[in-house]
Amino acid sequence: MNVDGTHYRTVWLDGSTVKTIDQPLIPHRFEILDLADYRATADAITTMIVRGAGAIGATGAYGMAQAMLQASPDRYTEEIEEAARVLAATRPTAQNLFYGIEKVQQAIREAADYESARREAVRAAETVADEDAAACEKIGEFGAELIADGARILTHCNAGWLAFVDWGSALSPVYRAARDGKKVFVYADETRPRCQGARLTAWELCGEKIPHALIADNAAGYYMARGEIDLVIVGSDRIARNGDVANKIGTYTKAVLARRHGIPFYVAAPTTTIDFDCPTGADIPIEERHEDEVLCMWGRDADTGDVRRIRIAPAGSHALNPAFDVTPAELVTGIVTQKGVFAPADLAKNESTLRA
Amino acid sequence: MNVDGTHYRTVWLDGSTVKTIDQPLIPHRFEILDLADYRATADAITTMIVRGAGAIGATGAYGMAQAMLQASPDRYTEEIEEAARVLAATRPTAQNLFYGIEKVQQAIREAADYESARREAVRAAETVADEDAAACEKIGEFGAELIADGARILTHCNAGWLAFVDWGSALSPVYRAARDGKKVFVYADETRPRCQGARLTAWELCGEKIPHALIADNAAGYYMARGEIDLVIVGSDRIARNGDVANKIGTYTKAVLARRHGIPFYVAAPTTTIDFDCPTGADIPIEERHEDEVLCMWGRDADTGDVRRIRIAPAGSHALNPAFDVTPAELVTGIVTQKGVFAPADLAKNESTLRA
Repeated sequence: MNVDGTHYRTVWLDGSTVKTIDQPLIPHRFEILDLADYRATADAITTMIVRGAGAIGATGAYGMAQAMLQASPDRYTEEIEEAARVLAATRPTAQNLFYGIEKVQQAIREAADYESARREAVRAAETVADEDAAACEKIGEFGAELIADGARILTHCNAGWLAFVDWGSALSPVYRAARDGKKVFVYADETRPRCQGARLTAWELCGEKIPHALIADNAAGYYMARGEIDLVIVGSDRIARNGDVANKIGTYTKAVLARRHGIPFYVAAPTTTIDFDCPTGADIPIEERHEDEVLCMWGRDADTGDVRRIRIAPAGSHALNPAFDVTPAELVTGIVTQKGVFAPADLAKNESTLRA
Repeated sequence: MNVDGTHYRTVWLDGSTVKTIDQPLIPHRFEILDLADYRATADAITTMIVRGAGAIGATGAYGMAQAMLQASPDRYTEEIEEAARVLAATRPTAQNLFYGIEKVQQAIREAADYESARREAVRAAETVADEDAAACEKIGEFGAELIADGARILTHCNAGWLAFVDWGSALSPVYRAARDGKKVFVYADETRPRCQGARLTAWELCGEKIPHALIADNAAGYYMARGEIDLVIVGSDRIARNGDVANKIGTYTKAVLARRHGIPFYVAAPTTTIDFDCPTGADIPIEERHEDEVLCMWGRDADTGDVRRIRIAPAGSHALNPAFDVTPAELVTGIVTQKGVFAPADLAKNESTLRA
């Protein structure tokens, strides 16, 4: 999407260099990182310079293509095995990562010789990235139909293009609606503790020139009670077979508030987010992250401009920091995918379509 | 209450010096400020070194006593008029402030001469402070009856002793229960944007050695859904005649969540918080505060130890920052006052008792 009027994807290949946006610097600086070899690319995934399912999948695929472009003609099969092993170990629970790596590995396996393996590896990686971008763009088309002209939309965390290759999931319908000429206004939850709303969503919305306001996570209920929010759209990290949705901590709270106020609550995600092998939300393990994310904050020093960490809480206090929560299917109005909008209860009966 | 094992009140008189805890430094430093004359005392209220209804009321009263102690024998009537004017102008909507000033002014007015005016002014100010501390202690006794041994309690913002002279409102029942030997555990919402939970409530709980965990405001729903919260207690800035409760932004959200999970939701406040002239919550104006409170954070630099401000959001984004919300009476299980626990719907019919 747009950054100062120029179109960017999250990650791309330039010769045999993988290029990616240095996401930890956002919103304070916009820099492109050159990842010179697949080990550097793997590091960028491990250290969360790249984050988000779709973006990680494409980065894994590009890392494999890069490994192939830099492999030696006589030992490339072994070298590619090693690259796949290193890249897959970066984020051991990222479904899209394995998909991206495997797609490129398969293309290399099926290639007749070294030269065609190089060509096909690049082609396969580009396909992985293009498919992700296309799925997200399609989510935008289906989702935009749910957004009326003048709609005021609440979103939580960042499920924008930075988490994918382009367009994003929850924000894609907003971008589509705006490009189609609809007036929209976004309330962006800051999303403590990591503030992905304040840092990433707000930055994306600036780039696309979407009118928006940041709000404290505490304020969403206030605006709903005043009738100033027309719909909620969030992303998801994993959707269970029964339609229960795991997403960033606080999502459940917004769903409960939306139900009380009769406000539609949509989840936008590519079909790869649906885990048909996971029966219900209760089967989704919830990651407990480091307490420092709650006790501290990161930001740009108001005086010096440096990015610093400050501690808010007293030295003697500890924090609990669950990273996700589960929103039960009954609170979800619809799940917006690249194949259309589904009632959460209808996922299982559409399994063959959604897995395709 | 306790600070490193020593008992403190928020504000007190020492000779003709008003002494107060420098609250903006908490939790990073604990310092007592000497306020040398009533103008310095007024400044401490204006700049929010002292905050919270009860604490402000007592500070206003002590400021008046201080003015009397420093007044000249021949012009003290005029000088006291001026002091009352200056002190009352510090926080023009603080009901308790006017009460504290008026009580001391009345004592001076009724005194026979200069010497007895000095004595009676001090006595009246001490009475204002003692009454506040006694009311809060009593709130603790009534509230503690609602807390079972082993209870896990959620609180929002800071309605502890720092906001009053001693004990506090929402935290007083917790302190009482703990001193009575009950095991309690407090989940303290950090309470963005100003983080009074992370800064003040957590610090108070450390001082009283109450087991607790800070959580992001987003996480309360998660713990309720897991059955790990037994009751919610919050304070209030203003309670309408019909039992609607205005309190820190985000309170309404916790009440909605508590209702969904069948968790009791209590509001603790001295009877002075009830505004019988305000028919419903819709009549309570909601202050919109500066957007920088959302866009930025204040805390102690992890490297240097200095207290600094950092900006989280992109330069191009703005924020909306409503400071309070209204929780409708139907979501409130009970209002804990120094005169007992009342159903919100019963306030009006107990008006004469509650106003006394």
